[in-house]
Amino acid sequence: MNPNDWLRPGERLDDLLTHEMHIIQSDDVFSFSLDAVLLARFCSVPPRGRIADLCTGNGVIPLLLSTRTKADIVGVEIQERLADMAERNVRMNGLESRLHMLQADLKEAHVALGYGRFDLVTVNPPYLPVRSGDHKLNIHIAAARHELYCTLDDVLAACSRLVRTGGKVAMVHRPSRLIEIVCGMREHRLEPKRIRFVHPRAGEEANIVLIEAIRDGKPELRLLPPLIVHEENGYCQELLDVYYGRADRLGGVVEEGQGGDEA
Amino acid sequence: MNPNDWLRPGERLDDLLTHEMHIIQSDDVFSFSLDAVLLARFCSVPPRGRIADLCTGNGVIPLLLSTRTKADIVGVEIQERLADMAERNVRMNGLESRLHMLQADLKEAHVALGYGRFDLVTVNPPYLPVRSGDHKLNIHIAAARHELYCTLDDVLAACSRLVRTGGKVAMVHRPSRLIEIVCGMREHRLEPKRIRFVHPRAGEEANIVLIEAIRDGKPELRLLPPLIVHEENGYCQELLDVYYGRADRLGGVVEEGQGGDEA
Repeated sequence: MNPNDWLRPGERLDDLLTHEMHIIQSDDVFSFSLDAVLLARFCSVPPRGRIADLCTGNGVIPLLLSTRTKADIVGVEIQERLADMAERNVRMNGLESRLHMLQADLKEAHVALGYGRFDLVTVNPPYLPVRSGDHKLNIHIAAARHELYCTLDDVLAACSRLVRTGGKVAMVHRPSRLIEIVCGMREHRLEPKRIRFVHPRAGEEANIVLIEAIRDGKPELRLLPPLIVHEENGYCQELLDVYYGRADRLGGVVEEGQGGDEA
Repeated sequence: MNPNDWLRPGERLDDLLTHEMHIIQSDDVFSFSLDAVLLARFCSVPPRGRIADLCTGNGVIPLLLSTRTKADIVGVEIQERLADMAERNVRMNGLESRLHMLQADLKEAHVALGYGRFDLVTVNPPYLPVRSGDHKLNIHIAAARHELYCTLDDVLAACSRLVRTGGKVAMVHRPSRLIEIVCGMREHRLEPKRIRFVHPRAGEEANIVLIEAIRDGKPELRLLPPLIVHEENGYCQELLDVYYGRADRLGGVVEEGQGGDEA
């Protein structure tokens, strides 16, 4: 099948730049951002087991995670148009044996997926409350940015229902909402254990935060070194390494034949 | 009066390295750390009004704050031996017109100081819970490190009682306890607004966190650029600037005749 045969009108095929994978995107519907790449390379991935990715969009995070683990991965997406795109991304990359897409509201995802059955839950949720910002966007773009279908509390509640005790929840979000996030995590028995801030340039405030929590974990946080995205001569080396597949994890280095990483 | 006449046995006189100030210290009782300097240079100081510094020890934070503001500053210290040292530090530096020391338990400080009467409350509390670490220290050192006289919750409750609505609370602590701190602040109506992490070296995890909250503030956090203490050739420039009085605030520059900074 010609790669372009997978596309619907307005869609394009992009190179994921790693493991010879490609991804269907669309400026009108969904295209992934740096945030998704960072989350997929930040989280601690079990070598096998079960992973859920909420608000999966076109499935970019499951695709990227599949290069780090043999685990089964299910992506959950509420919008039919995006879930369909994600489904085609799985098949186009030949990953249907271990990646699955579920079109569902994350508030109901436990009905299909059960309670406490996942080793890791990842999520790149909408960052903006409904009250703020520009709503003159089409519904797909608006829902990716604004909390139209789910609030932050809905997202944390869903993560907490799906993950097993001792399992991990990894989230990317805006630092401006950090306090709401970490206090909300605690309310849902998710104890933040690792945080990394991402700054666009040296000397600038952080605009992205990566957080990993453990269900019923012991309170003790590690605050990782900052990631400075742009250096004088372009992207920093750490980012280039994960973008071009020379490392499968932020701060990590790929070794030949490596299948996953520590849980 | 000869400077050495201010000293008791076992004490020494150190140069505060700024504004020709000196400070009485003692390795057996209390000597200030980098953390205190960072807090005094991180917090937003009102040009006048009232400031309280809890767990003040030998009064190092009031002394350093006095170079940034004309406000009245009261230091609160539970240990008589330290409160006496702080009192002598105030008089030795000729600051008795606007710096005062109160020997009191911070849990009772509002009895003498009132509710909601301070524009800024600063605190460099003990970092370690009582259950952890080495207790074979003398009481002065042990109380500065361990929560013997007050828990984190006691400290936050005291800050919240003393500060006015819209006033600021600034704290230095360990990143490992960040989640406890920010969730505890919220419980006491202190909304974290600015956070800065301090990393010993580039590529290392943070070991100090500076947090500023506003009483009844609107939830929205700024995550400042990281402070990397040690660079290749020694301390970073930003730190040297505040140590040697070339800047009176982290990230700031002293101008001639400058009395304070923005609230």
